[in-house]
Amino acid sequence: MQALHALPDPEALAQSVSEQDFSAVAKALNLLDDRRPDARQRAARLLAALPKQRLHNAGHLVGLTGPPGVGKSSLTAALVRVWRKRGLTVGILAVDPSSPISGGALLGDRLRMLSGGLDASVFIRSLACRGEFGGLSAEVWPMSLVMLAAFDIVLVETVGVGQKEIDVSKLTDTTCFVAQPASGDSIQFLKAGIMEVPHVLVVNKADVGIAARKTLSELRATLQPPSHAEDWRVPALAASATTGTGIEALADSLEAHRIWLVAHGLLAPVRQRFQAEWIIKRLLEEFGRFGIEMLGGQPRLLSSLVEAEGPPFEQYDTLRQRLLGRWRD
Amino acid sequence: MQALHALPDPEALAQSVSEQDFSAVAKALNLLDDRRPDARQRAARLLAALPKQRLHNAGHLVGLTGPPGVGKSSLTAALVRVWRKRGLTVGILAVDPSSPISGGALLGDRLRMLSGGLDASVFIRSLACRGEFGGLSAEVWPMSLVMLAAFDIVLVETVGVGQKEIDVSKLTDTTCFVAQPASGDSIQFLKAGIMEVPHVLVVNKADVGIAARKTLSELRATLQPPSHAEDWRVPALAASATTGTGIEALADSLEAHRIWLVAHGLLAPVRQRFQAEWIIKRLLEEFGRFGIEMLGGQPRLLSSLVEAEGPPFEQYDTLRQRLLGRWRD
Repeated sequence: MQALHALPDPEALAQSVSEQDFSAVAKALNLLDDRRPDARQRAARLLAALPKQRLHNAGHLVGLTGPPGVGKSSLTAALVRVWRKRGLTVGILAVDPSSPISGGALLGDRLRMLSGGLDASVFIRSLACRGEFGGLSAEVWPMSLVMLAAFDIVLVETVGVGQKEIDVSKLTDTTCFVAQPASGDSIQFLKAGIMEVPHVLVVNKADVGIAARKTLSELRATLQPPSHAEDWRVPALAASATTGTGIEALADSLEAHRIWLVAHGLLAPVRQRFQAEWIIKRLLEEFGRFGIEMLGGQPRLLSSLVEAEGPPFEQYDTLRQRLLGRWRD
Repeated sequence: MQALHALPDPEALAQSVSEQDFSAVAKALNLLDDRRPDARQRAARLLAALPKQRLHNAGHLVGLTGPPGVGKSSLTAALVRVWRKRGLTVGILAVDPSSPISGGALLGDRLRMLSGGLDASVFIRSLACRGEFGGLSAEVWPMSLVMLAAFDIVLVETVGVGQKEIDVSKLTDTTCFVAQPASGDSIQFLKAGIMEVPHVLVVNKADVGIAARKTLSELRATLQPPSHAEDWRVPALAASATTGTGIEALADSLEAHRIWLVAHGLLAPVRQRFQAEWIIKRLLEEFGRFGIEMLGGQPRLLSSLVEAEGPPFEQYDTLRQRLLGRWRD
């Protein structure tokens, strides 16, 4: 029993992860999910041992979000086929309580359907929603880092109409919102400014015809053109996971946004900022606004974290210890 | 200038509020919104001076929620007409960033339209979303108490597809969700368990015909029948703010839920629990999970707050001081 439950050596594990060893990636994600103190320490060492160059400047973190029933899973399967054809490795992190990947009534059926399209070289990890982080588990960020060390593309699938607070857009380089034909609610949320504008908009089930075209033109009318020529122009596309229409174009648009980020020197800063915000959000959850004030306030904390550039668990633990030291038992 | 900005006497203000003096209600809400220490103290005294009997056992806190564009404001106006005809006094608290009441592009037009139907005896207060409390301002609960002391019906209007975390259902006796015809997203959210099941469901724009009837039967199919005969059975209704169809029936359903709460001795306990949860949520925001643990943990804190039955600001401040006392400067 001892041997079965032994915690892995973090540095060796990090090495195997960056060699795209699937079982190492799975072990690394389990380690991040393990709350025991010894596991926490090893998880911190694992994250510190991941190749910095990859985490800062390589790969592509793609967020796919949209209401349940919109066909995110079939779209994911179709996208993965295109990416694999282009020779890219793919990891999927499914954080969707209604997703057939992460659970739900249709689990068995849909997974079989999916596996028809996914070859053995696609890594899938599902993550139940735990009610923290406005629906997004606190582990999504460190797990994304591990997968980024292993794969060319890391797709994070979440449910939502993109309310700012439960938004994957604070975790991924490129956010893609999937709407369905005649999905009035989503357009209304976008118009009302309740929904964060994604980097790419796609209307799925384009084979439905008129409804899809109508939704597409409504979405296009909602989008503001960028105020500077240099700014990213949000594309709104139609696609059909069923017929395969528009999937290549969707993959192209996602890649175009990554290229735009790289060309403007934004990839590393954007990720550094996500990490700083992730740390502050965890501190807020554990110690509240009062704790953040004790650490000098949010703006100062944010910029010092972005500058320091350490691995996430180490940065977090340093600040945590500083706060605990000021508490009278 | 001194006289203009002088803070009101809280006990006299509470008295005027309970006599339905509109300008006193407005002053009381301003006081709750005032962050200065002196104002905070007076706000605490105001809440403590409100008639307990009314806050615990009288009036009706109704939550109206739904995606933007669904016609919540026109429905509100139509409902208010029915309530007024029945001799009830009404206060409206609009917490909706896209609402024509609380702001938005159509503010002027819609308010004029509304005022055509609203007589002078309806009190309206709009509250901008402040990003705290998952979109619901921390002031909504104390403001609801003030309005409850003044009016028979307090309607809290919020935007949302009812995600559990940004839900008005933790603040009002009766929650009514407004769907629009062909609003696939909402039904999917309900099915997926992401949306809290409301007490009353209404499809607005029933004049649209087939689409409304189809949405209504889909919603009805989604609702589980209650497991006990005693349980509340969620009604799904069709209404049209434009033609007035179904508005009387909607008002009846809301009232039926209040009567059900009273008959089961639930009105006071439900409100007491909302207040306890409101206090814990504020403590979580200020001091995090760590703070709650230091106060004995959430379950114990919740039951002690429900038992103690004090006014909200006093209960909060006592716990706050206990935490601050253990912090080293």
